[in-house]
This record gives sequence, structure tokens and C-alpha cells, in this order.
Amino acid sequence: MTAQVFAFGDGVAEGHGLGKELLGGKGAGLAEMTALGLPVPPGFTIATSACAAYKAAGDRLPDALRAEVRAALANLERTTGRRFGDPQHPLLVSVRSGARVSMPGMMDSVLNLGLTPSVAAGLAVATGNPRFAWDSTRRFIAMYADVVLGLRAESETEPDPFEAMLVAKKRARGVTEDAELSADDLANLARAFDIEVRRRTGAGVPEDPYEQLEAAIGAVFASWDTPRAKTYRQLYGYPADWGTAATVQAMVFGNLGDDSATGVVFTRDPVTGEKCLFGEFLVNAQGEDVVAGTRTPRPIAELEAVLPLAFAELVATAERLEGHFRDLQDLEFTIQRGQLYLLQTRNGKRSARAMLKVAVDLVREGRISRDEALLRVEPGKLEELLHPGIDPSAVRQPIARGLPASPGAAIGRVVFTASEAEAEAARGERVILVRVETSPEDIHGMKAAAGILTSRGGMTSHAAVVARGMGRPCVVAASGLGIDARAGTITAPGGVIVRRGDLITLDGGNGDVLLGELPLIPARQDQDFDELMRWVDGARRLRVRTNADTPADARTARAFGAEGIGLCRTEHMFFAPERLLAVRQMILAPDAAGRRAALAQILPMQREDFAGIFRAMDGLPVTVRLLDPPLHEFLPRTDADLAEVARALDLPPAKLARRNQELHEANPMLGHRGCRLAVSYPEIYETQVQALAEAAREVAAAGVRVLPEIMIPIVGLEEELARLRVLVETTFRAHAPDVPFSVGTMIELPRACLIAGRLARHADFFSFGTNDLTQTTFGISRDDAAAFLPTYLAGGLLRDDPFAVLDEDGVGALMRLAVEQGRAARPGLKLGLCGEHGGEPRSVAFCDALGLDYVSCSPFRVPIARAAAAQAALRSARGGNP
Amino acid sequence: MTAQVFAFGDGVAEGHGLGKELLGGKGAGLAEMTALGLPVPPGFTIATSACAAYKAAGDRLPDALRAEVRAALANLERTTGRRFGDPQHPLLVSVRSGARVSMPGMMDSVLNLGLTPSVAAGLAVATGNPRFAWDSTRRFIAMYADVVLGLRAESETEPDPFEAMLVAKKRARGVTEDAELSADDLANLARAFDIEVRRRTGAGVPEDPYEQLEAAIGAVFASWDTPRAKTYRQLYGYPADWGTAATVQAMVFGNLGDDSATGVVFTRDPVTGEKCLFGEFLVNAQGEDVVAGTRTPRPIAELEAVLPLAFAELVATAERLEGHFRDLQDLEFTIQRGQLYLLQTRNGKRSARAMLKVAVDLVREGRISRDEALLRVEPGKLEELLHPGIDPSAVRQPIARGLPASPGAAIGRVVFTASEAEAEAARGERVILVRVETSPEDIHGMKAAAGILTSRGGMTSHAAVVARGMGRPCVVAASGLGIDARAGTITAPGGVIVRRGDLITLDGGNGDVLLGELPLIPARQDQDFDELMRWVDGARRLRVRTNADTPADARTARAFGAEGIGLCRTEHMFFAPERLLAVRQMILAPDAAGRRAALAQILPMQREDFAGIFRAMDGLPVTVRLLDPPLHEFLPRTDADLAEVARALDLPPAKLARRNQELHEANPMLGHRGCRLAVSYPEIYETQVQALAEAAREVAAAGVRVLPEIMIPIVGLEEELARLRVLVETTFRAHAPDVPFSVGTMIELPRACLIAGRLARHADFFSFGTNDLTQTTFGISRDDAAAFLPTYLAGGLLRDDPFAVLDEDGVGALMRLAVEQGRAARPGLKLGLCGEHGGEPRSVAFCDALGLDYVSCSPFRVPIARAAAAQAALRSARGGNP
Repeated sequence: MTAQVFAFGDGVAEGHGLGKELLGGKGAGLAEMTALGLPVPPGFTIATSACAAYKAAGDRLPDALRAEVRAALANLERTTGRRFGDPQHPLLVSVRSGARVSMPGMMDSVLNLGLTPSVAAGLAVATGNPRFAWDSTRRFIAMYADVVLGLRAESETEPDPFEAMLVAKKRARGVTEDAELSADDLANLARAFDIEVRRRTGAGVPEDPYEQLEAAIGAVFASWDTPRAKTYRQLYGYPADWGTAATVQAMVFGNLGDDSATGVVFTRDPVTGEKCLFGEFLVNAQGEDVVAGTRTPRPIAELEAVLPLAFAELVATAERLEGHFRDLQDLEFTIQRGQLYLLQTRNGKRSARAMLKVAVDLVREGRISRDEALLRVEPGKLEELLHPGIDPSAVRQPIARGLPASPGAAIGRVVFTASEAEAEAARGERVILVRVETSPEDIHGMKAAAGILTSRGGMTSHAAVVARGMGRPCVVAASGLGIDARAGTITAPGGVIVRRGDLITLDGGNGDVLLGELPLIPARQDQDFDELMRWVDGARRLRVRTNADTPADARTARAFGAEGIGLCRTEHMFFAPERLLAVRQMILAPDAAGRRAALAQILPMQREDFAGIFRAMDGLPVTVRLLDPPLHEFLPRTDADLAEVARALDLPPAKLARRNQELHEANPMLGHRGCRLAVSYPEIYETQVQALAEAAREVAAAGVRVLPEIMIPIVGLEEELARLRVLVETTFRAHAPDVPFSVGTMIELPRACLIAGRLARHADFFSFGTNDLTQTTFGISRDDAAAFLPTYLAGGLLRDDPFAVLDEDGVGALMRLAVEQGRAARPGLKLGLCGEHGGEPRSVAFCDALGLDYVSCSPFRVPIARAAAAQAALRSARGGNP
Repeated sequence: MTAQVFAFGDGVAEGHGLGKELLGGKGAGLAEMTALGLPVPPGFTIATSACAAYKAAGDRLPDALRAEVRAALANLERTTGRRFGDPQHPLLVSVRSGARVSMPGMMDSVLNLGLTPSVAAGLAVATGNPRFAWDSTRRFIAMYADVVLGLRAESETEPDPFEAMLVAKKRARGVTEDAELSADDLANLARAFDIEVRRRTGAGVPEDPYEQLEAAIGAVFASWDTPRAKTYRQLYGYPADWGTAATVQAMVFGNLGDDSATGVVFTRDPVTGEKCLFGEFLVNAQGEDVVAGTRTPRPIAELEAVLPLAFAELVATAERLEGHFRDLQDLEFTIQRGQLYLLQTRNGKRSARAMLKVAVDLVREGRISRDEALLRVEPGKLEELLHPGIDPSAVRQPIARGLPASPGAAIGRVVFTASEAEAEAARGERVILVRVETSPEDIHGMKAAAGILTSRGGMTSHAAVVARGMGRPCVVAASGLGIDARAGTITAPGGVIVRRGDLITLDGGNGDVLLGELPLIPARQDQDFDELMRWVDGARRLRVRTNADTPADARTARAFGAEGIGLCRTEHMFFAPERLLAVRQMILAPDAAGRRAALAQILPMQREDFAGIFRAMDGLPVTVRLLDPPLHEFLPRTDADLAEVARALDLPPAKLARRNQELHEANPMLGHRGCRLAVSYPEIYETQVQALAEAAREVAAAGVRVLPEIMIPIVGLEEELARLRVLVETTFRAHAPDVPFSVGTMIELPRACLIAGRLARHADFFSFGTNDLTQTTFGISRDDAAAFLPTYLAGGLLRDDPFAVLDEDGVGALMRLAVEQGRAARPGLKLGLCGEHGGEPRSVAFCDALGLDYVSCSPFRVPIARAAAAQAALRSARGGNP
């Protein structure tokens, strides 16, 4: 068995250089600071690997590990000249958890461990400070009871039982501050705490300090598997087998008097990124007081006046640590009788704005290279800078939470239909469109709304995809909400009822639904943003296009750096209310002539749409996907709709109703859609290609450089593509003989991947439609996944929602097959991805590794994809995993 | 360029041994007979490869080919001592098509080619038989006009124009037989035909015999692509690039007088298989008269009295040919002035019964080996022997045609609901259940019905699968039918209206729907059948199981040779009306306790079902699939249903209606089903496994050998299988500690194939569920495919319905991946297939080649699968393609 316990102290750290994977973030930081010669109280770290050993041994410390801990403790006694449980020279320690990443939900720490009644009495004598001794004791009992014994408030609304006793004591003494309580008061409190523990558990806090220590270490390991920790891991995709380390460290005391203090500092402002010490401290206190909020901490700058020497040392140390770690550090410190001690250092969490500014500033300061700066950016956070957000200082009381489908904050009055949304917006009202789920017919309402809220669907549901495309904040699958559009009410899980016209706020960044109007902070892309994105573009290989269906979206995306359109969905052109009637005539017409007549009505409008998009994308490629969705999405839904179409077609409504019924499908995702429609009704694609060709010719004549790429969806058979390619080529050439164009296919069915070599014979390009490919590979409908995917994610059956993060093992394996076969059959084959995964950083990295030429994503995700592509290129140049 | 024209005559055939692939069936047969020294008129065959060359040259004979034809013709002139277009010694030829398989829809033949007005006149003099000369001429003009010039009746109800003129002539002469017309009458008719051709085409039949010949050869090649020929190819999966050969052969004349004749014989009875010459002939006639039906041919036995010498030679030749080809032959012959000539020999088409008897008899006669007999059987036809069929001599007037979903003929009165079917059947009435489509709730009605007819669905729709399982004749997707259950009417495409209670007949073997009651012939499996199936079982490697959900089905399948159950679908146990209420309570219960209570009600019934199946399968493995279909299939459909469940659960109906609505899915095939349900509600599988274990223990205690294999459906993730395997094992062991069992998974999602290596860690067996795997691989819902698959098949985009014949390129590629990965991870992994493909011969051959252990199919297909497995084993032993 290899060593699992690593000591540190006096400038020597056994674990130095072993890394966070083994020591956890806290242990590694302490080892590093010790090796730097910084003032760190001595101690030892039990490695993360021991966490699994503890569980495997049946939730106890294995004998070998216990022996190591005892030996390390004996060593610590030698180093400090103090002894565990010795009333004269007591050794007190803290026990703290620390995984390789900082993770809420795990046990934080037990301080003052080693205190027993006799040690406390001895400590009072030894320090000449009985108040300190009893203050430490009552703190220890309360913390031990909480984190080791699990004695806490029975509900979130009740106060902590020990906190309640402290408050009662202060009320009885007529004081408000802890510091105003006397040593006797605190001794009484410690006794009362002890009695309460005995009352509740039958036994008290153990009087054997070794027993205390081992129980606390066990509690650290057990806390790795609390529900909250599990949920957090699942949310971030951290594996369960990482485990947490436990660090045992000699106590230093910030509560020894007015020459003692404790606090937390950031080496730069974590909100703005400004270079200045940022943080808080408390005099005569222990660490938990800063966090607990019972006392109001003071700004760090004031420490200079209180303890000038310690402050100067803190400033110098912060500078040194930042220089060493070359990143913004988040430090915990304690000042014991004027002497500074460091208890933790880690890379500080920061806002998107600070992330950007710190990275760029560190490059300017010459501390890191541009590549390092790029690798430190979290691409997903960039989108925060493109949308207004809720002021971080605002108090939040969400009434429900859903999936954060499209980021940004939105405020508006509740409406329940697309037409309401449009009407209210036309009156200048900001509205939130609230639906069980949205359909293509709602698009005009979604456009009019400030934000969208649904109770169903997933991260790639209609609402989510469209909202992201438009840059509208959107929360989906807020499944606790009862939406009753007829009554005009939303019933929230807690029973709150929101009515039509009430103001609500959506946070599309975390899925919160909030009552009323919360304060917002504006979107900002500053010089730092522009500079970083220039570096990004210099570093990446993968090109980034956008999914855009309108000239406005295309312009937005181009401003965000899109290098073309990877997916222009033509069906959205068919849903505009004034066109829908013609589309319905087309579908329900009894023959090809009827369909052609109806299509002819839409042709000029489509041509105008295409022309606008070509102009917006002058000089850049535009991939247009021919009609894709199931016909029935366009079908009349109400009797009035039906009657209108019947009039237009001059057919009896009953006959039309029958045809409408016939077109109904049991599983429309797997039905008569995409190229299958074009095989049945070639005139649909003919008309689309004609509109496209005419637009291209017209715009090219006006001097715009048009690069159309025509894409055929839902191909599963070589013959489908072979035939439709001929149809597309013939039609395009007939209407725009001089405009060059290419023809390709969407790869979105498993079978298309399996026969990719043969498809490549007829395709100039492949574009992976990973939304549909994920659906068919998993056999999971994204519209219905909300019924069980949350259970899968919460239960750890899936690490990520496969509609959000590309599934490399399944979908990715099919893509790899298709790339290999496709390129083998046609070496110059252009390869892209245009599913929602195109804007997700890990998926983008996968696409880079796969050798795709581009990814395409919604406009507001373009910067994310660019940054992710740059990181992928840098990592693969460094030989890291893709 | 290699030779494409092969001469035969006078005992020498250039093409002898080159095979049907090159010469076509007709050409190869003529070459073989020539080489045997049989009396075959000389001629030459233009190879099948020329068909593509003809098309490639723009529907004309390429120059090189034309030169070859001219040379062959010159050679034929030398051999026969006659010359093309020579009025004194005219050479007349026939031109006939012949692909490698006999195929209706192509041009059959043009006889008497080389006739021109001057040749006809010369022929009259040379033969001293002007009647013969003009009879031949009028035949030639009519045939040439029909097959080369395309002059025929404008609709099927009109008579052929030339036939009409012939009839008019006979009427004018007051005679009824062609033979009663005089030479002058025939000369006049020939002239009238010629004028009619000129009138219709502007030009007449060419007077240049070479021009006639080349046009006729071109017509043969063009006829390869008539719509009927294409449809036929698509139906049988023959590729378009095979092409047809064309044979040009010197004419011999059966119309030279009463010492001349023509006819067709089979060497054995093609209906019963009895060994006796079977066929027909006509004196003084040409071949087409036998087929056309204008004259009534005489039984072949009567030829002995008419032309005894020729008859004796025919009998001896038939014997010799059968001996040579070692199979039942179908011969065409002509007797010219007492001399027998053979014009064709081929393996004769035969009924299923004859197929079997001939194969077994030939073995008994020592002509072929058992292996050869097995390879000659068409496995798909065996099923005909298991069901009654419509008497082949009955006159059929189908009112509609659908897909032949489950074979056999059924007669009954039309009913429109399952309950009607049950009620009428209880009264002793035979009924046909007619539905737009069926659902699991209809099963009791399907069981009660003699046959099932639907207007929607495909070969693997619910109706098709269930009907095949039950052995009920079934026709699905009779899409021209308007079914109005409320009005109680079916409107057929031609306008015929069938009402509730009317008698109809279904032919599940070809998809016909017929009005009234047609005569049936009974099912018969005789000694020949049993003998052949014994040979089959000796030859095959692949095991054959059955898909059976009830003890009765299990017994039927066992009688047909099933070696276990490969798929027992437990959901069918949930649909019985008395159980459905409990199932609905289970689904709609607000919590696990409610679900358990509802499940407890069904448990004893399930246990009884399982016990019955175990008893029926004593000593054989039984694979039980845990609950699979989407929950909503079980949901209440009517308000009355809802009210009933609400009462049983003691919940307000409105609340239940809301939950019911919530459970509705947009794409149920891709929804909350199979193991996903068990992840959400583990108690469902727990109860099923408990029932299974209790049944196994009870039955084992009674001395039955039970071999349960528990199968988990819709697995796409390793974790799903890992967890549910534990649940299944724990539960089973708790209730039947001493019964051995195994646990495996259905492989029915692309992702399952892609991660098969990891799934194999947790599976004792894999069973490929190719119905669902085909759906997801293609992204085609089998319930909705009827809207476009027929267009795909008719248009040649697909050769086969992938739900009927396993798609080797796509689905098969995924299966291969899974087999390789699965076996690599777990060498002893048992592999099977339980989709509908398990009873389709080509798919069975694929499974054999893939190395699966077994296929499982519906009971009535078990003999088919056994025979197909034997053939696959024999072919692969011979190194043939799998």
C-alpha cells in the first residue's frame, strides 16, 4: 500500500507537486504555500484515494490508514511541541474537506478539534484567556454536533438549535454582539451545548480526541455523498470516483483578542476583474463568523488601520501567490496575536467580466501567455456578456426553476398566447410568453416577447432552440408549474398563483422564475472582449458558422464573428401567418397541380427572404436546408383553420377534415418529413430551389458575393440523395445558370452514418444534424425526454443531457464512422455540425478532434464556439486529450 | 469487346455452360438442350449484358452488337439453307426475351419475323399451303404491332384491336373457330391488320426484315423496363442491372396442318407434385393460342392418340430432361409435320405442396441429394401448408388489395370493433375484424376474429405482428379502403360499399380483399413435410425459437419445431380487459405505494400466465421481456374509462384527466418506455420478476424443467442495464432461490449496438430487436411508414421493405458491430434475434452468417426459419455467399 497521508509544515510539504487530483484543492494549495515558505500552520492531508477506501471498508477508516493518521499526528505533536488531549500544552486541529474542485454540499470544516472539558480548562489557564478557551469550546461542540453528528435544524425555516441557544443567551444578558458575552457566559453555553447533544444523541461529543478526529475524518469522506454534493457533481459532470481529501491542520486562533483576526481576500476584484485587494475580515473571530453572516465583516482595506504589519504582509503575500499561481487567488487567512497565517489559497471564482479582464490583464502584465489566457477562459460564460443579467446583489426568491434554455434575464407581463404577445408588444408592453410548450406557429409571439417560459420540453425543445436563435431568454421544463391558459393562471409549486398581466422575471442563465421585476445589469462587450476574441481567432482551426433563418439573425451572428450560415431552416419561412394559409393549401391539395399553385404564392416571399440573407452574408457561405419538418406541423388545428383552407381550395370541409386526419402521424419525428416529402412531392423542393436560385441571381447581379450550399435533410438512402441532387442541380441551373453552388446532405440518421461512403458520392458536404441523430441513436424524443431524463441525470445514469452535450460514445462513434467513410470516398468532402451541440464547448472540442471543418450554432453562442475551438486547437497542439 | 451473341443448333451451342446470368433462362435452356442433342431449331442468343449496352447507347443497338447480330443471322441462313427476306426460301425467326429468372411484364415473343408481303406470297407457293402463309402473316402483324409498336387496347376493358377484327371476321363468316376461316379470309385479315397499323402509326410494319429484327430485339431490351417488370423486380428484390437476354430462333410451325401441333408440358404435376406428364396442346396452332385462351387446349394425354410417335418422343424427352436437370421441367414444344421440336425448358413453377413432394421424391428416386433438395425449397412457401388457402381454381374479383401481413385465407362477416368481434364469435359467427389500425386493446377481438383487415400500417404494424403471432390471416394497409366504423361501412376504391355483417374473404398470402365467400382448400402437412423438416433440422446450425405470449401460442410453435421462446411479450398480459383497470390504476397512481397496490392485483394473473408458458416449454429456454411499450398505450381513452379508474383510485376525475394529459407523448416510440419506465418506477419490474420467479418455482417443484431468460428492453446506457440487472437478480433470487436463470438485454437502439462491449459486461445474452432497431436506424416509424414506403418501393429507392427484410447495409452493420464487441467482451455471450425478420429467409441467412445462436419468429413462421437456417448452413459450407 502506498502512502495516503502527506505532512506539511516548516517549509517542507511531502505532497508538494502531487497535485489536486491526489491532495484535493485545499491540500495542494497548503502544500504549495508551505513549500514557498509562507506562514502555514503545520498539518497533514489524507489523499482523495482514501475516500474510496473508507467507503469500501464499510464507512470506516481501514486499519492501515488509521495507523498512518496516528503517525502523522504524532509527528505534528513533535513539530508543534503540543500534544493531543494534553491540558497543559493541548494540540487543537481543524479537519477540512477538499476535492480536486471546489464543491458546495460537502462538509466544510470542524475547527478546534481536540477540545475536551479538561483541555478547555487547561487552555483557559495556559493562555490566561478563559474567554477564548470557552469561546473555542462552544464553537467546537456546535460544529462537531452539526457536521459530525448531524444535529441541525429540522427544516430550513427553523434556526440552528445551537444558534438559537446563543441568541437566547444574548437576549438574557441584554447584549447584541457575541463579543459582549463574558467568559462565564460562554462556559455556560458550552455546557448547555454539551447537554443538548447528550439529550439528542444519548451520548455526548467524545472525550477521546482521537475518537473525535477519526469521526471528523469519516464525516469528511461521508460528505462526498450527500444529496447536494451528488446533485452538484451531476450538474457539472464530475465523476463520483474522484473522492475528497481531508486536511488535518494545527489550529491558529483569530479569536485570541483584538490583535487577532480572520478573513478572506481575492487578489483582484472577482466581479469587475480590477487589480486591487478585495475581501473582508473580522477582529477576534474564527473563520466561520465571516461566512455565517451573524457579524458584519469589514472591508479588507480597513485592516491596514487595525493591524498594519499583518496587513502589509498580507498584501505582499497576495502579490506573491498571484505571481506564483499566475491567476487571481482566493485566500483564507488568520491573524493570531499579530502574526499572519495562511489557511487556503485557490484560483478564485469570478464573474464572466472578471474572467475576461483578469485573463487579458495577466497577459498584459506579462505573467501568462496568450495561449494560457485562452485556455483559462470558460467559453460557456462568454454568453453572459452578450445579454443583460439580474443584478448579482438582488435578493432572489424564485417561485419555480426550470432548465436554463437560453441565457439572459427578461422581465415582462405574463401572456399565454402568441397573438396576445404580439398585441401587447405592439402596445409597447414587455411580455413573457408562457406556454406548456411552443410550436412553430408561436414564432411571431416568441419574437414579440421579451422572454419565454414553458413547463415542458428540454434543452433542444422547440422553445429552447428558437429562443436561443433569437437571443431571447428562455426557461423550459419548469415542470412544477401548472399553466392554465384558459383561466389565465400559472400555479407555482409552493401554491403561488400568477395571473395574466402579472410581472415576472426569468433568469435564462440558471432557470429561475421570479415574481415581480428584479434589477438588471446591462450586457457589455468591452475592449477586453474584443482583444480576447482576436486571440481566439488566431488560435483556432475549426470555423464557426451560425444557425440563422432571417437577415436580422444573420447580421447579429456576423457581428459575433460567424463565418457563414451553417443552417438556414426554411420551414420558419413557411410559418408566418400570411404564408401559412398557402402552405396549408399546398399540403391538402388533392394533386401536384394544386400543390404547385399554392407553392407559387409563397415563392416570391421566399425569394425575398433568401435575398436578404444572402445580402447579410455577402462573401460568406450560406447553407440552406430544404423543407424538413413533418407536414402535419403545418396542418390546420382548429375548425376555423380548416374552413379557411377549404374555402381557399374550394373543397368540402368534410373532405379536407378527412385528409387532415389521414396526415396525422403516430410518431411524427419518424414520419413523412424531410427528403421523404420531396420524394412524394418533388414540387416542394423545386419551388424552394427556384426561389433560392432566383434570389442568388438577383443579389449576385447587384454585386453581392453569394455562396449557396443547398442541403437535403433526413437522408437515409443513397437513392434519395442521388435523385434529389439531380432535382436540385437541374432546378438551380435553370434559374441561375451562372451562380456556382454546392449540394450536400444533413447526416442525422444512424443509417446515414453507416452508409456515409456511398452518400459522399452524391454530396459536396455533410452537415451533422446532431439533434436528430441524438434522438434516433438513443431512441429518445427530445419532446418527451422531460418525463425521464431528469431522473436519469439525478440518478447518475447519464452524466450529461445528450441533447446539450454531444454523446461521444454513441452519437460520436457514428460520426467518426461517417467522417472516415465520407472522406475516404471523397477526399475534399466538407464537414460541419449544425445541431445545438455546435455551441457547447466540450462538443466543439470533439468536433475539432474529429477533424470537422466547422460547427454552426445559434448567433449568441458564436463567441462560445470560437473560444471553445481555440481551446481545442491549443490543447491538441499540446497533446492533451481532445 | 467480348462476344455478346452465342449461336446454337445442330448439337452445338456456343453458349453452353455460360449460364443463365449471361444467356437468360430461355437461352441457357436452349443451349443445354442443343448440347444434349435434342431437336431444337437453330438460332442465337444475345446476352443479358447487351441490354445495358442498348440502354447506354440511347435505346439503340450499338454498332458492334449489330454487326455481331448480322453475322449470326448469316450463319443461321447457312445452317437452315434459307434466307432472310427470300420469297423462295424464306428464313422466319422468333425473337423472345429471357432474363435469368422468369419474369412477367417483359415482352414475351414475336413469332414469324421475316414475313413481308412478298415473302408471304412466296411462302404460300413454297409450302403449297396458302392458308398457313396468311395465318402466319396475320399473326406476325398483330404481334409485331402489339409488342414492338405498342398498339394495343387503350384500356383493360376494351378488347385488343386485332383480336376484335378477327372476331368480327368470324362473325361475318358465321364461324366460331379460327380454323374455320379460309386462306382468303386470313389474307384479307392480314391486309386489314396492315392497314390498321398504317392508320394508327402513319407507317406500317417495316418491309425490311433486318429492320423488323432489330426493332424486335430493341423491344425485348426496352421491355425490361416496363412498369410491370419494374414492379415485379421490386417485389422480388431483383436488381435492375441484371437485364434480359434476347433469343432469335428459326421458326418451326405448329400451324402447318393437322400433323402439326404446339403445347406446354410439366414433367410432374405442378399442383400436387405427382409424377406424371402434365400439360396441354393444340393441333394446327402456334404457341400463343395455348396461352391466349381463345381456343381450349386439350390435355396432354390425348396427344398420344393424335400423334403417337411425337408423343412417345415427347415422353422420352421429358424424362431425359428431368433426369438431366434433376428437377421438374416446364417445356414448350412444337410438332411440325409430325416432327417434335423443343422451344424451351425450365424448372417449373409449382405449388408449395408440389415443391415439397417433388423435392422429397427426387431424393427418393436417387436423383438429387438431401442437401440439394433442401436448397431447392423456397422457405417462404412452407407457410402456405400451415394455413387453409383459397382454391386456386376460384375466380377472383378483389375489391381492394393491401399488404399480405399474415398468410392464409379467412372468411367472415364484417365487424368494426373488438367487442363486436368477440360477441359475434361467441355466438358462433365467423367474423373479420376491420379497423383503420389496431391497438393492444383490440387483442381479444383479434383472437375472436377469423381474419383482420386494416387500412393503415405496414408489415410490422401492430395488426400484422399480432396476427402473425396468432396465425390469423391478415391484410394491412389496404389504403384505398374508406372505413367508417360509425356508419358501419367500408367503401372500396371502385365504389363498392361493404356493410357491417356482409361476408368477405381475405387472402393473407397476397393481400386480396374479396367480396363474399370463396372456396377454400385445407391446410396440409403430410409425411413429405415431416421428412423434409427432419432433413432441415439435420442441416442447420442456427436454432429457431418462437415469439409467443400465451401457452396456446407456445404449444403451436413447439408443434412447428420451435426450440424455445425467444420473445414472450409481457405487455400482452396487461391488456386483458379484466387487468386493464389495474394497469391503469398503476400508471395513474400518485406514488409508489399506489403503484404497488395496483400491481399486486395483477401479480397472481401474471404468475399463472408464466406458469402455463413454462409448462408448455418444459425443457426449453423461455426469454421473457419485461414491460416494454409506452405507458400511454395503457391510458384511459374515453371519459368512461377515466371515471372508472378515478373511482378505483378514489381520486377526482379532473386530477386524473390532467395526469392522463401529462403522460401523452409526441413520439411515443421514442418516449418513456421499456427500461426507462423501470428506472422511474422500479416496482413494475420487481412485480413482474416476482411473478416470474414464483411461477418458475411452482412449476419446477412439479417436475417441469424451466429455463427462464429475463430480458430488459430499450437499453441504451450501460448504467440502465447494470442497475436493472441487480434489481432483477435480487428479486428473482428472493422468490425462487433455487431456480437458475439468466439476465440479458434486447439490442434495439443504435446506441446499444455502439456500446455493446460495455453492455455485454452485464448481459448473459443479447437479443436483437430488429423492429425497433430498424425504426431508429432509418428514423422511420413503422406506424407511419405507409404514407411513403410504398412510393419508395415502387420508385426503386428501396429494394425491400426494411421492416420485412433485414437491411444488411444499415441495421446489419450495427448488428455486426454489436456482435463483434459483445463477443469480444464476453466470449460465451448468447446471441439471438427476435424481430419480425426472424421468420424471413434472407434475414435468417444473414443471422446465420453473423454467427447468431438463434432467431425467434412467430409460430407459423418457425418452419420457414428452420428451412432458411438449413439453407444458409448448406450454402456457407459450400462457400456460397451468405
